[in-house]
Amino acid sequence: MNTIAEDVRQTAVRARAAAATLAPLSRVDKDRALYAMADAILAAGQPVLQANAEDVAMARDAGTGTAMVDRLTLTTDRLVAIAGGLRKVAALDDPVGEVVRGRRLPNGIELRQVRVPLGVVGIIYEARPNVTVDAAGLCLKSGNAVLLRGSASAARTNAALVAVLREAAAGAGLPADAVALVPGADHESVKQLMRLRGLVDVLIPRGGAGLIRAVVAESTVPVIETGVGNCHVYVDVDADLDQALAIVLNAKTQRVSVCNAAETLLVHAGVADAFLPRVLTALRQAGVTIHGDDAVRAHDPSALPATEQDWATEYLSLDMAVRVVGSLAEAVAHIRQWGSGHTEAIITRSLEASRRFVATCDSAAVMVNASTRFTDGERFGFGAEIGISTQKLHARGPMGPSELTSTTWVGVGDGHLVI
Amino acid sequence: MNTIAEDVRQTAVRARAAAATLAPLSRVDKDRALYAMADAILAAGQPVLQANAEDVAMARDAGTGTAMVDRLTLTTDRLVAIAGGLRKVAALDDPVGEVVRGRRLPNGIELRQVRVPLGVVGIIYEARPNVTVDAAGLCLKSGNAVLLRGSASAARTNAALVAVLREAAAGAGLPADAVALVPGADHESVKQLMRLRGLVDVLIPRGGAGLIRAVVAESTVPVIETGVGNCHVYVDVDADLDQALAIVLNAKTQRVSVCNAAETLLVHAGVADAFLPRVLTALRQAGVTIHGDDAVRAHDPSALPATEQDWATEYLSLDMAVRVVGSLAEAVAHIRQWGSGHTEAIITRSLEASRRFVATCDSAAVMVNASTRFTDGERFGFGAEIGISTQKLHARGPMGPSELTSTTWVGVGDGHLVI
Repeated sequence: MNTIAEDVRQTAVRARAAAATLAPLSRVDKDRALYAMADAILAAGQPVLQANAEDVAMARDAGTGTAMVDRLTLTTDRLVAIAGGLRKVAALDDPVGEVVRGRRLPNGIELRQVRVPLGVVGIIYEARPNVTVDAAGLCLKSGNAVLLRGSASAARTNAALVAVLREAAAGAGLPADAVALVPGADHESVKQLMRLRGLVDVLIPRGGAGLIRAVVAESTVPVIETGVGNCHVYVDVDADLDQALAIVLNAKTQRVSVCNAAETLLVHAGVADAFLPRVLTALRQAGVTIHGDDAVRAHDPSALPATEQDWATEYLSLDMAVRVVGSLAEAVAHIRQWGSGHTEAIITRSLEASRRFVATCDSAAVMVNASTRFTDGERFGFGAEIGISTQKLHARGPMGPSELTSTTWVGVGDGHLVI
Repeated sequence: MNTIAEDVRQTAVRARAAAATLAPLSRVDKDRALYAMADAILAAGQPVLQANAEDVAMARDAGTGTAMVDRLTLTTDRLVAIAGGLRKVAALDDPVGEVVRGRRLPNGIELRQVRVPLGVVGIIYEARPNVTVDAAGLCLKSGNAVLLRGSASAARTNAALVAVLREAAAGAGLPADAVALVPGADHESVKQLMRLRGLVDVLIPRGGAGLIRAVVAESTVPVIETGVGNCHVYVDVDADLDQALAIVLNAKTQRVSVCNAAETLLVHAGVADAFLPRVLTALRQAGVTIHGDDAVRAHDPSALPATEQDWATEYLSLDMAVRVVGSLAEAVAHIRQWGSGHTEAIITRSLEASRRFVATCDSAAVMVNASTRFTDGERFGFGAEIGISTQKLHARGPMGPSELTSTTWVGVGDGHLVI
């Protein structure tokens, strides 16, 4: 085994040992460490900002785009926000120890299902350094050790942040190995991480569709898919068209680079003549490029012709695919064929239409007369999220501290035998 | 793509279409089909038994062992039991539609998390034909289409059973493709099944450790690991030794071929002199071969010397590994190193010892003063189980109908926008 691979394995072995120490800790112990980490990040502002300035300079020299450089950049204000995030996580309920179900069996055994940490959680993510601290905080809150694999472009920043977090954890009496960077910046190091089934309990890739596809294809460690959001708004024949207009604009334009932004608008043919002129004008005025089917282009010849590629694309930009459908069933069929299973919205005044849409859309979240942008751990009241799962196993939708746990069945008897 | 691979894919495509029809069905519709299936199995007794007789004859000719042939064999009594199993599943609560959590958000959106079917569930299993019907029943109850991949040795029996189930489903107004056999008996067919990510939502291998390892290593479809049970009984220094003796015998000998039988006995050094002579004699009298460490062999020179292989083995036979440990912590360390994360039992009168054991054993189930044999879906009150998960993601421990579901978040608003 080469050196990097062995380094990665040893890091995971230490994380596993740390996880065994973290699992039985009480909330008080974990929160003390989280508050200490928040204080330490503020106290260590200068060295962290210095490391970050080096990453930013490297990125600029490499010709990285402005948006990406902005995501990479830390400022004192951003550090204050990051520290504040840790304090918010500390203030959340401890998911560990929650009794999910329980009863006394007919034979007298007292049986309960109790939340326990997953163990070692691996996060593979892209540029933003705040993910380093947010992920560490959420994993620690839920009693897990975390292995962090950020992008090479943020290597100095992440190393500086993790050094601060580890020292603060140790100072608060926790194992420093509760938080660790995966060593090595090349693909070999990630590959090894994805092979550590038995040492690493779950991998959560956070980033673009390409990253997630690669991790899903290569990993033998179980993966939770997150974040790809090809979200739809369906304007039903019974929609309140004023409400529909406001929701479409909000879902598309309030923030375009996020996974819960809408990418495709489906309009029932029965309201197309009344709604399309209004919505297409409003979208154009908001700077949105329309990719429409024939019926849409009949209303707006300036719209680009939509292809299957458009139905399948998560634009993350001021683009929107627009299609006229003959029925709610046709809208659902479109969503089931082209969607990513993240969030869909229906705009309707019909109770029956809303029930059918909810029952047949197969997505992590379905909004009725509300913007797709509401699918979010903070807005759902989780306090924070580690990502939005678009898979069906384990967790679906926004993942808060509870979603970073497993359960154990505990049965207490008095000499009970199976007969 | 070769013909078998394409056949498997087409079968999965049809199952996926069936799953879309099953998802919104009410309990009444699903239960009607389950009762119809039970009736049909009894009505079709002769052709099923005839097909089974051919499988059994083939197995005997191939020199298959008696225990395996017995597991393969169907009788009228066994068919009655299988049909009874379907009726019991019909009588269970419908997990689909259950509201897991819900609240009104501060902005007025009514948010709820609702159980929905997983979609298409693939089961890969070994000889016993009852699994064919049990799995189909549990999957249908939870609104899923099922792809069944039994062993080649039961091919005729499974084909006959599935034909009966499909006809009964269709007769009750459900899509016949809700239940389907994976075509092809060779490995190519399983390999293709394991590649159908996106068409198949989860694979559940039921069988020996080798089968499960192979599926975990090869599948890109998410897998739920089941059933490997290297279970431990730890007799604490504060144990009631009479209770300990009865529980060890029950856990080891009441039924040896099942995953919740105990394989290793760990005895605290403080009670070794008092307990080992009694337990070793009793185990020997029950026909158990002892594999002991030096301390055990000092009490019983006839015991075989235990190796690391013994600590790691799920015997599923009248063998037991026995070790003396210096402390509860040493017992837990042994279990964490060698166990399979299925079920561990502690025998103790000490509340503190029971709390520490429960908090630090990292297994699907922990029994206090009760036999490991209690970890079972029926005994836990689930009515039936599709297997016992030994992994931490999604489901851990016995899996009933609820564990075959995912969830969707439903948010109902009145024109709500993100600001």
